[in-house]
Amino acid sequence: MNSTRAHDTIRAVRWNSDRLELIDQRILPATEEYLAYQSADEVARAIKDMVVRGAPAIGVTAAFGVVLAARAAYARAPANWKALLQPDMQALAASRPTAVNLFWALERMQRYIEAIEGDPVPALLAEAQRIQDEDIAANYAMGELGASLMDAPGAVITHCNTGSLATGGYGTALGVIRSAYAQGKVSQVYADETRPWLQGSRLTAWELVRDNIPVKLLADGAAAHLMKQGGVTWAVVGSDRITADGSAANKIGTYSLAVNAKYHGVKFMVVAPTSTVDMSIDDGRKIPIEERDPEELLSVQGKRIAAQGAGAWNPVFDVTPPELIDAIVTERGIVRNPTPEKMLAMMKNG
Amino acid sequence: MNSTRAHDTIRAVRWNSDRLELIDQRILPATEEYLAYQSADEVARAIKDMVVRGAPAIGVTAAFGVVLAARAAYARAPANWKALLQPDMQALAASRPTAVNLFWALERMQRYIEAIEGDPVPALLAEAQRIQDEDIAANYAMGELGASLMDAPGAVITHCNTGSLATGGYGTALGVIRSAYAQGKVSQVYADETRPWLQGSRLTAWELVRDNIPVKLLADGAAAHLMKQGGVTWAVVGSDRITADGSAANKIGTYSLAVNAKYHGVKFMVVAPTSTVDMSIDDGRKIPIEERDPEELLSVQGKRIAAQGAGAWNPVFDVTPPELIDAIVTERGIVRNPTPEKMLAMMKNG
Repeated sequence: MNSTRAHDTIRAVRWNSDRLELIDQRILPATEEYLAYQSADEVARAIKDMVVRGAPAIGVTAAFGVVLAARAAYARAPANWKALLQPDMQALAASRPTAVNLFWALERMQRYIEAIEGDPVPALLAEAQRIQDEDIAANYAMGELGASLMDAPGAVITHCNTGSLATGGYGTALGVIRSAYAQGKVSQVYADETRPWLQGSRLTAWELVRDNIPVKLLADGAAAHLMKQGGVTWAVVGSDRITADGSAANKIGTYSLAVNAKYHGVKFMVVAPTSTVDMSIDDGRKIPIEERDPEELLSVQGKRIAAQGAGAWNPVFDVTPPELIDAIVTERGIVRNPTPEKMLAMMKNG
Repeated sequence: MNSTRAHDTIRAVRWNSDRLELIDQRILPATEEYLAYQSADEVARAIKDMVVRGAPAIGVTAAFGVVLAARAAYARAPANWKALLQPDMQALAASRPTAVNLFWALERMQRYIEAIEGDPVPALLAEAQRIQDEDIAANYAMGELGASLMDAPGAVITHCNTGSLATGGYGTALGVIRSAYAQGKVSQVYADETRPWLQGSRLTAWELVRDNIPVKLLADGAAAHLMKQGGVTWAVVGSDRITADGSAANKIGTYSLAVNAKYHGVKFMVVAPTSTVDMSIDDGRKIPIEERDPEELLSVQGKRIAAQGAGAWNPVFDVTPPELIDAIVTERGIVRNPTPEKMLAMMKNG
């Protein structure tokens, strides 16, 4: 990964000697500040308060939270620390109730705990670090696979934040963009500002500026006009859930980007680890879509914009069907023009 | 227009005994305040400062500005007022250099001035009022024509602000929505918030709430997901310039909406008076697109959002080609599936 090192300098979650450090994503990019955590309780609150966001990053954070919980429990009761640990495990699990990676990481740590004898801290710390390292390794693998799909150098467009801030490091869609940029395949990154939460403006632009990759923001509604100008070769996005038919749920606005990509002959790539793939749902249209508080649209940056009496419709995700997706990239391989059969074959690979 | 009266209560520009009053669109919807103007100089500054916006509304405002200029000039020099007037005419013309309706209104007033003898105020006031009344009448006509295209009741979606605030009154696309709602053909209006200036949130939602038409705002990127749910029958938008081939330039984001409308089988209507039609341009791709200060995207509501070093691409308009437009509606008639021949025939009609 030598060639990409200059474009991979950020870790949102890091263990530093005896404490967990999280970059405070609520105040980026104005302020770059790592907050330090010495107890699982504080870590649970940090997840809840959105100091850290992005499903893989939350999973890694929770794993380190278990290390802190075990350290405290073992110090208090070396003979009985496994039982003492459970309230902290529950607090961590309750911190963000819908995050699949959070539960997955806690279960993995719990299984490991059951086999430990003596001081659990060195072993659990190693395991938490492995969870982070494996996530980064998966992102590197996806980065290489995704970049291999790009031939001619060109501009790419992305949506929301899928980078180091959202993962153990490097990123999913943004990891592909990092790898492709390092290989000279990306001339310019366009980032949707991503209303209503502006993750593109607040987080993606910050990451790319920090990592020396040229980025221009644009209004979500301007992406079609950009594609019409020519020059954009790929749209590269992440996913919160991929179903067995090759549909991909992702941040609201992704589906609009996919429709426009198809219309303009821009290729569309979805990048996500297999932990995101839910083979129990056979049709993307069955994915339930959460709707959030209309207030998030009626106000901007805490200031009321819309008239009293106006309503708003605020879905969190949309679903892009397989016919609009040129390639799904996971750490296990590439699925071109996804079908249920190809998805199954990819999941069985490894 | 009895049936629509409850849905047509707003005038952004109005003459009140001896002064011009403009609703201050910069502070809507938080504050509804009409500012009063007694001199052309103040009116020019109000246009420049965006107290009033929307090409037809600016034209009407400038016409009343000429009345104020003539009144002052005639009071100072009854024999020589026409010459004395010219600096004010120039100040009004310079207030917004690209607004075609502004020049059109000033030229119409100037032609009228040349024939006047004696006190010019009553005649010029009547002429300015005629300009406003004709604009409103054109909007009523377009409202009826556009509504006649809608058969089954359903939801509609619109972009930016094209209502009473942007025109002499009633509106273009929003005028069609007013008429169709009064006729029971619209169950719900969805309004794109319209980044980066948020005209949908700030202005369109306010107008519709005021005029008792149910409105829900949505992020621009959510329109595709909305159309996929079904229930939206028409997208109805305005235009800043329509070319001889039936292309329509409009606020950035309109083209994305049109691509998504085509993909989802939602019909797409462009509503604008013939004063917007530029038959000298034979191809919409030749319309120059202004790009504005990236800062408008990098900051939101005066607060810096994006990282230092991030760029932004901030085009003001995009162009929707005729193949994505089901109908262009002007005060002279409806052009279905626009072609150069049909555009020419419509322009010759009347």
